[in-house]
Amino acid sequence: MSRKAFQDYYPDGFSHCYGCGSKNEHGHHLKSYWDGDRTVAHFRPKNYHTGGVPGYAYGGLVASLIDCHGTGSAAAAAFKAEGREMGTEPAMRFVTASLKVDYLKPTPLGVELEIRGEILEVKPRKVTIDLSLIAEGIVCATGYMIAVKLPDDSAMNTKDSEK
Amino acid sequence: MSRKAFQDYYPDGFSHCYGCGSKNEHGHHLKSYWDGDRTVAHFRPKNYHTGGVPGYAYGGLVASLIDCHGTGSAAAAAFKAEGREMGTEPAMRFVTASLKVDYLKPTPLGVELEIRGEILEVKPRKVTIDLSLIAEGIVCATGYMIAVKLPDDSAMNTKDSEK
Repeated sequence: MSRKAFQDYYPDGFSHCYGCGSKNEHGHHLKSYWDGDRTVAHFRPKNYHTGGVPGYAYGGLVASLIDCHGTGSAAAAAFKAEGREMGTEPAMRFVTASLKVDYLKPTPLGVELEIRGEILEVKPRKVTIDLSLIAEGIVCATGYMIAVKLPDDSAMNTKDSEK
Repeated sequence: MSRKAFQDYYPDGFSHCYGCGSKNEHGHHLKSYWDGDRTVAHFRPKNYHTGGVPGYAYGGLVASLIDCHGTGSAAAAAFKAEGREMGTEPAMRFVTASLKVDYLKPTPLGVELEIRGEILEVKPRKVTIDLSLIAEGIVCATGYMIAVKLPDDSAMNTKDSEK
């Protein structure tokens, strides 16, 4: 229950993302975890996150959840590849270089969504990931992400990194 | 000043999108227009739409703006291809089948963003579009969308289509 999510290890100055940052008081606060050698996150949208038609999520939310789970998974995979625990220094934070989302079926609201990631490749500065968004056992969307590591930045690796 | 946006022509029952629906009171209300034979929308994010680092937009917002501008542009292009004004019946509404976003540079907050579309191909049920998101003259992200037409639905073409 007290397990920390990937995003909980982000340095404070890099934890402001509306989609997943612990320090964004308006945002979604997506939390991603390992599930074996894959990654998983769960999210229940608000009723107003609707697409054009009530009862289904808007495409931007689907992309946002896949995006944030992807960059979180990239960071976790990079630490794992270095044999280090997340939270140890030097910190590593990944951002999206490219994201392709295929919308296979409408994503229903009113249920918990599951976002899953499968790490395809980890290079020193680049991680590629297959992603999917699942509702009630049905894959509603798939994603393919290329995430790149932010340049080393001393601000990421100091206690007073808030900026 | 009173020019109607593409999204203002969506049937009421299909106007609930968080990204661009006129009937979503919590959403972004993105408005897209023709600009010659291309399309354009403008949007100023809130300060809390930040990515991991303050001062820049989160990737999900970038995807959302490109997505909603794309589906709006698809509908507008489909009407144009049929030689009809938007708002005439039968209504047509497009949803995203596939969206690829390349994040080229961080998208700054605190400025108005411009989202542009170039229609590549219009088929009866499918429109493909190149998209870009620009801040202060700099292209921060590009998109490529395949949008598909929702099946004809009588609910889209009646006055009491709210459902």
